[in-house]
Amino acid sequence: MPLGKRTDCGDARFAGVELPFAELLCGFDFVVAPLVDPSHRRPALELPPGEAVQARLRTELMLSSAQWGGQIVGRTSPWIDPDSPDADAAALSARALAQELEWASFLGLQAVLVPAPPRLGAADNFARLLNRTLQNLSHMAVWVQLPLAVPKAAAAAAAAAAEEGGEGGGEEGEGGPPRDPWEDWQRLFSLCERSALLGVALEVGADLPPAPLVRRWLGQPLKALLLPTSVFTTNKRGYPVLSRPHQELAALAFRAGVQLVLTGESRHRVAPAPTQPPPPPLPPAAAAAGGEKAAAAGSGEQEPPHQPQQQQQQPPPAEGFPIVNPGESHPLRPYWEYLAYLFRRGGDPSPHEALEAGYRDYLQAPLQPLADNLESQAYETFEKGGGGGTAAARRLLRVYAVEKNPAAVVHIQAMVAREGWGDVVTIVSADMRTWQAPSPADILVSELLGSFGDNELSPECLDGAQRFLAPGGVSIPRAYTSYLAPVTTAKLHEAVRAYKDLEHWETPYVVKLHRFHTLSPPQPVFTFEHPNRADPTDNGRALTLTFPRRAEDGAGELHGFAGYFEADLYPGVTLSTHPSTHTPSMFSWFPIFFPLREPQLLPAGAAVGVHVARVVGRHRVWYEWAVTSPTPGVVHNPGGRSYWVGL
Amino acid sequence: MPLGKRTDCGDARFAGVELPFAELLCGFDFVVAPLVDPSHRRPALELPPGEAVQARLRTELMLSSAQWGGQIVGRTSPWIDPDSPDADAAALSARALAQELEWASFLGLQAVLVPAPPRLGAADNFARLLNRTLQNLSHMAVWVQLPLAVPKAAAAAAAAAAEEGGEGGGEEGEGGPPRDPWEDWQRLFSLCERSALLGVALEVGADLPPAPLVRRWLGQPLKALLLPTSVFTTNKRGYPVLSRPHQELAALAFRAGVQLVLTGESRHRVAPAPTQPPPPPLPPAAAAAGGEKAAAAGSGEQEPPHQPQQQQQQPPPAEGFPIVNPGESHPLRPYWEYLAYLFRRGGDPSPHEALEAGYRDYLQAPLQPLADNLESQAYETFEKGGGGGTAAARRLLRVYAVEKNPAAVVHIQAMVAREGWGDVVTIVSADMRTWQAPSPADILVSELLGSFGDNELSPECLDGAQRFLAPGGVSIPRAYTSYLAPVTTAKLHEAVRAYKDLEHWETPYVVKLHRFHTLSPPQPVFTFEHPNRADPTDNGRALTLTFPRRAEDGAGELHGFAGYFEADLYPGVTLSTHPSTHTPSMFSWFPIFFPLREPQLLPAGAAVGVHVARVVGRHRVWYEWAVTSPTPGVVHNPGGRSYWVGL
Repeated sequence: MPLGKRTDCGDARFAGVELPFAELLCGFDFVVAPLVDPSHRRPALELPPGEAVQARLRTELMLSSAQWGGQIVGRTSPWIDPDSPDADAAALSARALAQELEWASFLGLQAVLVPAPPRLGAADNFARLLNRTLQNLSHMAVWVQLPLAVPKAAAAAAAAAAEEGGEGGGEEGEGGPPRDPWEDWQRLFSLCERSALLGVALEVGADLPPAPLVRRWLGQPLKALLLPTSVFTTNKRGYPVLSRPHQELAALAFRAGVQLVLTGESRHRVAPAPTQPPPPPLPPAAAAAGGEKAAAAGSGEQEPPHQPQQQQQQPPPAEGFPIVNPGESHPLRPYWEYLAYLFRRGGDPSPHEALEAGYRDYLQAPLQPLADNLESQAYETFEKGGGGGTAAARRLLRVYAVEKNPAAVVHIQAMVAREGWGDVVTIVSADMRTWQAPSPADILVSELLGSFGDNELSPECLDGAQRFLAPGGVSIPRAYTSYLAPVTTAKLHEAVRAYKDLEHWETPYVVKLHRFHTLSPPQPVFTFEHPNRADPTDNGRALTLTFPRRAEDGAGELHGFAGYFEADLYPGVTLSTHPSTHTPSMFSWFPIFFPLREPQLLPAGAAVGVHVARVVGRHRVWYEWAVTSPTPGVVHNPGGRSYWVGL
Repeated sequence: MPLGKRTDCGDARFAGVELPFAELLCGFDFVVAPLVDPSHRRPALELPPGEAVQARLRTELMLSSAQWGGQIVGRTSPWIDPDSPDADAAALSARALAQELEWASFLGLQAVLVPAPPRLGAADNFARLLNRTLQNLSHMAVWVQLPLAVPKAAAAAAAAAAEEGGEGGGEEGEGGPPRDPWEDWQRLFSLCERSALLGVALEVGADLPPAPLVRRWLGQPLKALLLPTSVFTTNKRGYPVLSRPHQELAALAFRAGVQLVLTGESRHRVAPAPTQPPPPPLPPAAAAAGGEKAAAAGSGEQEPPHQPQQQQQQPPPAEGFPIVNPGESHPLRPYWEYLAYLFRRGGDPSPHEALEAGYRDYLQAPLQPLADNLESQAYETFEKGGGGGTAAARRLLRVYAVEKNPAAVVHIQAMVAREGWGDVVTIVSADMRTWQAPSPADILVSELLGSFGDNELSPECLDGAQRFLAPGGVSIPRAYTSYLAPVTTAKLHEAVRAYKDLEHWETPYVVKLHRFHTLSPPQPVFTFEHPNRADPTDNGRALTLTFPRRAEDGAGELHGFAGYFEADLYPGVTLSTHPSTHTPSMFSWFPIFFPLREPQLLPAGAAVGVHVARVVGRHRVWYEWAVTSPTPGVVHNPGGRSYWVGL
């Protein structure tokens, strides 16, 4: 049963539960359950017939194949350690891992949770075996389970060891420092060729790491947070609740589409299930809250103080939903209700958020307004933004609207007539670069900015059009600057990689970045001013930027660069997509994303250097970019071989 | 005119000369000459008509197109600095670089020498522009000129700055430490996507860096050493000679096929040219020494003490060879004669070296003797090696020669008859894994070793055959161990990359490694012993090796791993391809090379970790390998998807 519906969160299947045995769903969307009887420490298919737990699971839950696939996440045996120094144990582990994953795949599970073996930072055999399995999988996801933070005791021991002169390198012997789980994950992910099926599930502890160390996981394929009942505290009414930092973590997970998985035994037995028969029919909200089996828990007294379920109408349980022990309220139910409350507290998305949701992490090729004629939808999107320019235009004595797209001219004519501007506006169907104005203009208004400022060739267009301007005339915009920031976004890296060609690695994309992490704040790149009185004009640019990173933010992974712009329209009027100066309620531009063919692992504190050039050829303009530090990479798009904008 | 002929050195065109103006070849194979009049500091094609030097070069040398291509290496203008802080100078430089390279390409030059701009470690724009040119070139090579060693003065200044607390990072400001030229080269090479057309030419100074810092260049596309006349000393007869370390460097260059280029003015005017007319005909050796124009220098008195040319007969100068100023002996001639002497001092290659020369850096797929039947040539090659096993065999009472290849059986029958072993040897046409021996054997002799020891499935074959053995019987070999060492070999990296598919990156190759550098000594990998009394038998293996590297050996680049083996045939008798224990005069195996899809830059002192596994499936055996440190890479060949050996 979903926690609720929010259109920006897709299916809203965001909470699971880990049980030692898959007995109940008790409201949760899915159950994490062991694939093999935990008491057996042998490869699954080498058990005597009838002893394998999976068969019991299947019959007791009476699941259909679809339910099995949709509602069970398998968990492999935690004793598996293919890197064990004991060769026999290692061999046994290797067989067990392969067999359990094969079994899960055979069952049609959507995902399997794989507890990381001890010493994951050196678990090369584990990584190699997992990689081989991933190569053979077509749809089943594998979530490797890691701690979100180094356990305090281990960290303290490491700090003490470091003070005594212990080495701080990558070795993780008995007395060595605990490795950063993020780096262990990176190592595993790299060895597994960044498989699109490999994800990570993080165990949340009572103590959370600093926010930047949490946020960098958003750029990785983080699939689930494992939330033990032990991290819940108790409110004055005896219900399980989360601390504020944990609430924020849950909110972050909901926004990012990361599943929450409750683990551990109930520690808050607040809502004992009444005996049969069930009470009379309930009002819709309460019925929705617990479905059939939790209806008995719907009395006012037992409702937790956060009052879940009251704002939303739930669909009835889907046909075939596995109702096991229908008369019982599960002891983990209060946790589910609290998570549902947190989920719904996020509120409904704004219409704008709802609109954007469909574009999240969706790669779009940038517009080529000069070379192509845009479709009317693009114009309509432009008109939704743009601020108060139109009001100012009314005060002008005479307006020439120059439009090179014949189809758009028809659209503009209709708009001018609709708005009653016929006496003010003269519509000209021409290219501004070649049109001859009847008289010099005092103001030249244009909307030629792209997601990276100059990438739709505003500099070239306005250089061509500035001959309309009277001496002392002004251009709106009068200047604009592009910005870049290094980002982690495994999702977009995978999306570009899926094209399997060089061209897509060398193309900047317009994209609503969502599952990403900014590694260092944006820095200005190229600035253009209008009118441009330089002679000769040179709109080519090349520079190298260095992005510092704080050592305390840990290691990072670089997948590319997010691009933004700031435009100075007129004194006191700006337009910005830069995250920290973003124009409020302005949705006309998504950021741009410059991908990298090879992701780069960044040691803690290592600065990122990037060289970026805007190259102006005879018939086209393009960008070239390359990482220069910490490790130099290749120059992307040399000579505009993959991507360019036609003049 | 070549320095001499050595069959293992190919065309033996190994010495050029840099001249301020391409006036003469004076015995050298080629001339390095400026593409543009050095007095002009403007882009070549923006010079007033008639001022460009290239036109004069062409007419004065009366070169044919083929000669132009074969005998001139162009040099771009040294003032070019596209990363100049002066924007105008940078723009001018960018245009000049593009135009000079275009001009060189138009002339059909085989190579152009490009002096590195100041601050190459941060010359991103230079790298980007060079890369773009390389993308458009089809055959012309570009050699970037760098110092072999940091100049002493700069190094001393850096050391002083470091003592005063200066930073030791990658920044190379005015007071910062000088960068390692090798790292600058790596940065440029990376940014240029490791173009196959990009090479490096190193300026040799009076002081040479330690040998490991020189040798690591052998793994890079080092094309030339620039040898200034100033590094020559003078022997007691007044002739230019090199110090012993410089002689060793020259010998290294000759062996590696690296060209020597003499630069600078003559400082040893020992052989003034006599006036016309030329003396009477000379004996062949002296005539060969100087060709026509140097014949006058052929008297006994003026001959340098190293007596070049006397062992070899030179072919006459090729038709059309540009003899300019035929009556003069060029002042640089004594340097050429000394280099020719050094070259010939290397001596003629042994027949074995001559045989191997054709296989250097040539990738071969490993044999599959079990799955395929080999050709007779392979057997003949086997018979050339192998040591004294056959003599020992004669003493045995009865020999069964078991051969699964029917064609080879014919070959063996002939050999047995030829050697008169008919009474001792019974030839059996069968697979040893299934043949039933008439009686248990005391000794089981096999030759199933591959370049990586077990890679031709000796373990599986001998496990199958050991049932022939009587209790206490011995296997020859009785054990073997494979070895791996991390290596730099840009040449093989490029050779594998040229296939443009994944399969070739995941295949180990048999190859006579030549232009390579070992980053850390070989370490043992997998050991097999015979007879194998383990039950059950498991010939699968997996382990992680860590290769230490000394900080003083500088940064490195990892392209893959060289593999060797050592076999213990019988007590006191070994067979080895391991470089430090290699069996003398044994040529039956070349090393094996495990490539890496992505080269890895290794900081000075950073250890290399590799995980390698031998996986035994039902019908085939394969290896999987992955770099695990300093930066984890991908697992190569998971599941044997690209390479395997059939059982």
